[in-house]
Amino acid sequence: MTTTATLTPAQARSLFRDDYSGPTTGWAGGYTQTNLIAVPADWAYDVLLFCTRNPQACPVLDVSDPGEPTTRLARGADLRTDLPQYRIWKDGELVAEVADATEVWRDDLVAFSLGCSFTFETALAAEGVPLRHVDQGRNVAMYLTDRECEPAGRLHGPLVVSMRQIPADRVDDAVRITRAMPAVHGGPVHIGDPSGLGIPDLARPDFGDPVDAADGDVPVFWACGVTPQAALMASRPPYAITHAPGYMFITDRRDSDYRV
Amino acid sequence: MTTTATLTPAQARSLFRDDYSGPTTGWAGGYTQTNLIAVPADWAYDVLLFCTRNPQACPVLDVSDPGEPTTRLARGADLRTDLPQYRIWKDGELVAEVADATEVWRDDLVAFSLGCSFTFETALAAEGVPLRHVDQGRNVAMYLTDRECEPAGRLHGPLVVSMRQIPADRVDDAVRITRAMPAVHGGPVHIGDPSGLGIPDLARPDFGDPVDAADGDVPVFWACGVTPQAALMASRPPYAITHAPGYMFITDRRDSDYRV
Repeated sequence: MTTTATLTPAQARSLFRDDYSGPTTGWAGGYTQTNLIAVPADWAYDVLLFCTRNPQACPVLDVSDPGEPTTRLARGADLRTDLPQYRIWKDGELVAEVADATEVWRDDLVAFSLGCSFTFETALAAEGVPLRHVDQGRNVAMYLTDRECEPAGRLHGPLVVSMRQIPADRVDDAVRITRAMPAVHGGPVHIGDPSGLGIPDLARPDFGDPVDAADGDVPVFWACGVTPQAALMASRPPYAITHAPGYMFITDRRDSDYRV
Repeated sequence: MTTTATLTPAQARSLFRDDYSGPTTGWAGGYTQTNLIAVPADWAYDVLLFCTRNPQACPVLDVSDPGEPTTRLARGADLRTDLPQYRIWKDGELVAEVADATEVWRDDLVAFSLGCSFTFETALAAEGVPLRHVDQGRNVAMYLTDRECEPAGRLHGPLVVSMRQIPADRVDDAVRITRAMPAVHGGPVHIGDPSGLGIPDLARPDFGDPVDAADGDVPVFWACGVTPQAALMASRPPYAITHAPGYMFITDRRDSDYRV
C-alpha cells in the first residue's frame, strides 16, 4: 500500500510541484527533510554566520549559489516549486503564503537548507518512542522562547523550539537517540516545565498545531529550524522566502546519513 | 611537575604572547586547539561558505566580527598575539612567518577558528591508542591530496589531511573514537595506501614533520584544518593571516565539549 510514508522523495516533491499542499511530518519515511530560508545575496553572510553561531537551531546542510534554486541534497529538484507551502516576507512581515514560489523568486536569492527535527523522528519511531503529533495527524507544535540566539551582523532573534510529548520512561531514550544526530538539532534544549523557556501555554503554539499529551507524558523541547523565521521577524531584511513551518523540503538524503 | 601537557590554556597563551614558539601538539591536555584563518571582510562569505560545504576539513567553531581579534572560545585572548606562530599570505603566496601578528593585523579582518585534530588525540590517548608524533616529539605530518574540496564562490583547493600511524589492531578503535567527534574532523577520510589520496611519499609531508612508523602500523588519514591554507594558495585572495601548521590556538573549551 502506498502511503505518504512510503513515497519516494522524488514522488513527494512531484506532488508538491503539482500544488498539493500539507505538512510533511511522516512523509517519505527515512529521508531527510529540510527547512528553507532564501535571502538576497547581500544578506547571505549574515544568515550563514547566524546559522554558524547557532548550530543547534540552524544546522546548515546546503547553501545554493545566488540565483540557483537548486540543492545538492536532491538531484533535479527545484526549490521554487518542490515544497508544499512557502512564506513570503517583506521587511520582516509575513505578506503571503503560496504553494508555488516561482513568481516570487528573485535572481539574487541565496537558498539555505537547514536540518529538521523530522529527521530524528524516524530514529525515535524505530525505537518505539511514540510521536503524538504523527498519531494525531497534526503538525508538530513549535514555540517562540525567551532565549535569545547569538546575534550575527544584522540578524538577531529568539530561539524557536519544537515540542514532543514523550512518555516519562522514554525521555532518556529520546535524549540518547537525538544527541547522536547533531546535524539535525541534536539533543533537547529543555525537558519539562515550559515556563523554563518562557512558554506560557503549550495549548497555544506559535507555529504548527497543538498536540494532546497522554497521561505520564513529559514535554521535551528541541531547537527548531523555524528559528531563522523568528530572526526575520525581529531583524527585518527587505525580502525573504521560507518554507511554511512543518511544510518541509524532502531531500534524497537518508536520515541515517546524519547519525554520528 | 609542570609540563606543556599540564599547562592551563591561559598559561600556554601567555607563553606564546611572550613570543615563545613551538608546535602545540600535546599542550594543555584536554583543551581544544583551533586552526586560524583571518581574511578581509569582503572574502569572509567565501571562506564561511567553503567551510560550510567542507565541514569535515573545516569545522567552524567560532567567527569573529570584522576588526575584533577576539574569540568566544577563550575569554581575554588576543588572536594577534596568542598563537605561537603565524603565516602571512599575499595574493596566495606565503610571504612571512611571525610569532606576533599585531603589526600585520588589519581592521577589516574576520577571524575563523576551525576545529583541529589535536582535539581527538586526547580521546585516542585516553584509550591507549599510541600517538607516534607525540612520542617522537614531532609535529603531526600533513599532506596535500588529489581530492578537490567543494568550491565556494572564489575559493577552491585540494583537501589536506593529517596522518597518524596506528597499530593495525587499534585502527577500529581510532575510527570509533574520532567518528564521535564530528566538530573536530570526525572519522578518517582514508585508511592505508597513501596513493589512494595521491600522496607520493609519506616521508615527505607538505606540512609538519615526517613521523616514523612502528612495525605493524597502518597510516590513517583525517581531514585537516590546514585545508583552508591550501585554498588560499589555489585561490589567491589579496591578504590573509593563518596559524603556522601545527602551531595552534589553545582555547578554554574542553575536548569533551566536542564529543557527541
